[in-house]
Amino acid sequence: MLESLKEAVWEANMRLVREGLVRLTWGNVSGIDREAGIFGIKPSGVSYDDLRPEMITLVDLEGAVVEGEFRPSSDTATHRILYRAFESAGGITHTHSPGATAFSQAGRPLPCQGTTHADHFYGTIPVVRELSPDEVAENYEENTGHAIVAHFRDEGIDAAQMPACFQRFHAPFAWGKDAAKSVENAVALEMAAQMALATWQLDPRQPGLPGYLLDKHFLRKHGPGAYYGQEDRQVAADPGLQEDASAAQS
Amino acid sequence: MLESLKEAVWEANMRLVREGLVRLTWGNVSGIDREAGIFGIKPSGVSYDDLRPEMITLVDLEGAVVEGEFRPSSDTATHRILYRAFESAGGITHTHSPGATAFSQAGRPLPCQGTTHADHFYGTIPVVRELSPDEVAENYEENTGHAIVAHFRDEGIDAAQMPACFQRFHAPFAWGKDAAKSVENAVALEMAAQMALATWQLDPRQPGLPGYLLDKHFLRKHGPGAYYGQEDRQVAADPGLQEDASAAQS
Amino acid sequence: MLESLKEAVWEANMRLVREGLVRLTWGNVSGIDREAGIFGIKPSGVSYDDLRPEMITLVDLEGAVVEGEFRPSSDTATHRILYRAFESAGGITHTHSPGATAFSQAGRPLPCQGTTHADHFYGTIPVVRELSPDEVAENYEENTGHAIVAHFRDEGIDAAQMPACFQRFHAPFAWGKDAAKSVENAVALEMAAQMALATWQLDPRQPGLPGYLLDKHFLRKHGPGAYYGQEDRQVAADPGLQEDASAAQS
Amino acid sequence: MLESLKEAVWEANMRLVREGLVRLTWGNVSGIDREAGIFGIKPSGVSYDDLRPEMITLVDLEGAVVEGEFRPSSDTATHRILYRAFESAGGITHTHSPGATAFSQAGRPLPCQGTTHADHFYGTIPVVRELSPDEVAENYEENTGHAIVAHFRDEGIDAAQMPACFQRFHAPFAWGKDAAKSVENAVALEMAAQMALATWQLDPRQPGLPGYLLDKHFLRKHGPGAYYGQEDRQVAADPGLQEDASAAQS
Repeated sequence: MLESLKEAVWEANMRLVREGLVRLTWGNVSGIDREAGIFGIKPSGVSYDDLRPEMITLVDLEGAVVEGEFRPSSDTATHRILYRAFESAGGITHTHSPGATAFSQAGRPLPCQGTTHADHFYGTIPVVRELSPDEVAENYEENTGHAIVAHFRDEGIDAAQMPACFQRFHAPFAWGKDAAKSVENAVALEMAAQMALATWQLDPRQPGLPGYLLDKHFLRKHGPGAYYGQEDRQVAADPGLQEDASAAQS
Repeated sequence: MLESLKEAVWEANMRLVREGLVRLTWGNVSGIDREAGIFGIKPSGVSYDDLRPEMITLVDLEGAVVEGEFRPSSDTATHRILYRAFESAGGITHTHSPGATAFSQAGRPLPCQGTTHADHFYGTIPVVRELSPDEVAENYEENTGHAIVAHFRDEGIDAAQMPACFQRFHAPFAWGKDAAKSVENAVALEMAAQMALATWQLDPRQPGLPGYLLDKHFLRKHGPGAYYGQEDRQVAADPGLQEDASAAQS
Repeated sequence: MLESLKEAVWEANMRLVREGLVRLTWGNVSGIDREAGIFGIKPSGVSYDDLRPEMITLVDLEGAVVEGEFRPSSDTATHRILYRAFESAGGITHTHSPGATAFSQAGRPLPCQGTTHADHFYGTIPVVRELSPDEVAENYEENTGHAIVAHFRDEGIDAAQMPACFQRFHAPFAWGKDAAKSVENAVALEMAAQMALATWQLDPRQPGLPGYLLDKHFLRKHGPGAYYGQEDRQVAADPGLQEDASAAQS
Repeated sequence: MLESLKEAVWEANMRLVREGLVRLTWGNVSGIDREAGIFGIKPSGVSYDDLRPEMITLVDLEGAVVEGEFRPSSDTATHRILYRAFESAGGITHTHSPGATAFSQAGRPLPCQGTTHADHFYGTIPVVRELSPDEVAENYEENTGHAIVAHFRDEGIDAAQMPACFQRFHAPFAWGKDAAKSVENAVALEMAAQMALATWQLDPRQPGLPGYLLDKHFLRKHGPGAYYGQEDRQVAADPGLQEDASAAQS
C-alpha cells in the first residue's frame, strides 16, 4: 500500500546521504499521506546502502506499524507527535549534520544572518530544551516530540514558517511540505549553521538580517505572493513580457 | 537561437555544481552575446539534475524574455543591470558559497592576503551595502544590480580588474570575460575567503600582500603583459628558447 | 585460512577510505578470530588502491605472522596488546583522522557534548600519555599498546563501554565487536571531535550532556536493554503493535 | 623521449586533483631524470581535465624547453632552481592547498605538533621570505627558487629531511624522491597544517612533539634504519617470525 509514498520517502532518505548530511545511520526521513493518516519512515539501524523502497515502514498516527517487516526508526514517536501537531508538515527529516548539531549541543539559537537563512526560515531557529530525567525514563522519543511542540506553542512560533529546530544536546529536526522539502530544509539549516560559524569568526557582534529583508526573502519564496521557481509557467513563457513585469518577477 | 551560448551557459552552470559552490538551487550563471545584446541564464528554481542546455532562458538587456519556456532566474534583473554597466563582463555567476557568503553576512571586505587572491582580483574585494526598505519594496533584484554598479562607480573600482563583490547580508557575485571565467572567479573568491579565515585564525593582524606583489600576480595573468597560459603558443613551442627568455616567461 | 576474516578485514579497511578517515596510508583496521587466537591486519605501507583480501596478513597473539606474504602494519604490536587486554574487542581501527588527531595532539580529553557521542561512547574519551624515551627506544608500538591498557586499567575505564582513546601527540585508536564496528566507532569519534570543536566555538563553557541522557543514549544501543536496530525482528514486524509498546521501542 | 618520466609526472599531476589539493589550475608537479638532467612539468594554464601524458613539457636544468608543444608552467624556473640546489629532490609539487596556503599567508612556521607531521617532516616547516621589489621585477619565479634555497642554506636545513616550505604570501612547495612522493609530501603538509589549526583551537599553547618522538617517527620511515612498508619483503613473508623481532619491526 501507499507505494508512491514509500518510493518518495526512500528517495528522500537516499538524498540525505548524497547531500552529505548523514554518517553511518544517523538520520531518517519520513513522509505522510494526510488522507490516510499514515506515514512512511526509514527502518531503524538499516544501512543506507541496503535501503530499498519496500523496506520503508508504514506507521499510523497512533504509533501502530501498518505495514513493513522492519522495526521503524527509533525516532518514529518523535515524527508521529510532530505530524499530529504541525499540520503543514508533510515530511520530517532528522539528522546529526555537524554544524546544526553544534548549535544543538551548544544550546544556542541561530538568529537570521542572511538571505540563505531567510529563504527557508522566517526568523531565529529555536533551541528546544533537553528532556527531564522523568521524560527520559519513559517514552523518551515521544516526549522529544512533545517538547518540540510545546516550545513552538509556548513561544508562538508557526511551524509552517519555521520548519526546523535544534534539540538541546541532541541534533536538528526539520520539516517541509513533503519528504523531499524536509530534506531541503535540513540542507539549508546545515548551511545556515556553517555560514553563521564563519560569519561570527569574522565578526562576533553581527546585528543579523534586517527585518524587511527577512520578510522579502522568506515571502518571495513562500506564501501567496511567491514568485520564485516555475509554478506560474505561462508567465515565464511569454516572450512579450515587459520590463517592469519582468523586474517584479525576476 | 544562440545555441552555442546556451550550451556554454549550461556547461558553466553544471560546473558550478561540480566545483562544490552550490547547494540546492542556490546559484546561477549567465553569459552574454554582446553583439546580439542577449544573455542566457539558468531558469528559476530548476534542479541542476534536471537542467538541460535547451532550458537556458534568453533575455535581452531590456529584461524581455526572448526565448525559453521557463521563467528565468529570480536574480535575472541583477545580471541585466551588471551587463549594462560592466562592459567587460561576458559572464556572471551568483552563488551562496559558504566562505564568501560569510564575508557578505559579516559585511567585511577582503583585503588581498596572498597570491591566490592576487591572481584573480586586483585589490580588496568590496562589500556592497544592503538595500533600503524602499529599494526592497519594488524591483528588489534590479536595485541589487544598481547598488553594485553605484558602489563600483562611487569608489572608482574597475569591474574589469575587480570581478567580484560581496552583497551585504546576501552572498557574492562574480563575473568574467565569459560564463566559464565567471565561474572560475567564483571559485577563486570562495577559496580566497576560506584561506583568509584560516590565515586570520593564525594571525588576525596580517598586513596583507605588498602592493608590488599584487601588481606582479594580477598583471602577469591579466592585461597586455600577461605571460601565463598558452595564448602565445609559438613561443612555448620553441625548443631553442634561451634561459633569460624562459625565466621571464615561466 | 580464515578467508572470511580476511575478507571482513579487507572490507573494513576499504570502508575507512570511503568514510574519508584516511589519507595516504595513515590508517589500518584489524579483526580477530577469538577461537583461533589470530587476527588479520592491513599490510604495512600498501596503498589502499592496491589492497586485496588475500593481502591481509594473519598474526597470532604472540606476534608471529601466521600467513601472508606482506609485512603487517607497523602498528601491529599495538593491536596485539589491545586484543590481549580488551576481551570485548573483535576489531581495532587506527586512523589519523583530522579532528580526532587534533584532540590527540592537544592532549585534550573529549567530555560527552551530545547524543552523537553518547550513542557510541559512555563518557569522556580519554587521552593516553605519550611514551617515555625508554619506551620509544625499544618496542615502541608494543609499548603504545601497554600505555593504553594501563590507562584504562588505572582509571577504571571499561573498554567495552569506551571503545576509543586519543594517543597523546599521535592519533586515535578505536575498537568494536568486529572490524566493521571498530570503523564505525572511528567515524563516530571523528564526528564527535569535529562537532565539539564547533560547539566550543559557539560556547567554550559547555556543561556537556547530563548523565541521565548519557545513560539513555548509550544504553538504548548497547547492553541487554538495547532497542535500536533490527536484532529483535519479530517485534518490529508485528502490525498489531500497540502504541505504548511502540513508543517504548521507537 | 623520456616517455616513462612524462607518464609519471602526468600521473602525479592527476593525483594532485584526486587528493583534493588543487582547484582550477593552481598547482603543478614535476619530476626529474637526474642522468639526463631533464625534468618534465605540467604545461601552464592547461586544465587537468585536458591534461595528457604527451603534453608534459620537458625542460633542462638551464631552463631550455627540450620537448613539448606547450609552454611549461609559469613556476618552471622555481622548480629548476630547486632541482639544481636540492640533489635529493626527484620530484617537486606546488599547490595552493588551503591549510598550507594559510600558513604561507600568515607567515607562520609550523612546529611539529604530532606524529603525522613527524612521519614526513623532520622538524618545523619553515617560512621563506617574500621577494623584494627588485627580485619581483625581473625573473620573479627564478628568484623564488633562489629565496627558498638561500633560506635552507642559511638556516642549515637539510632539504632531504625537510621536504617542504611555505613561501610567504604565496603558497607551499614540497618535494620528494620522485614526482609521486612529492605529491604525498604535499598531502602530508596540508593535513599537518589543518590539524595544527584545530589543535591550536583546542589549546594555543602547545609544546609540540618531544624531540625523541620526532626522531622515532621520522627515522622509522626514512634513512638506513627504516622499517615501515614492504621494502624488506623476505622478512615479512617469514611465518616463523619470533615475537621480539616482530615487535621491533611492527
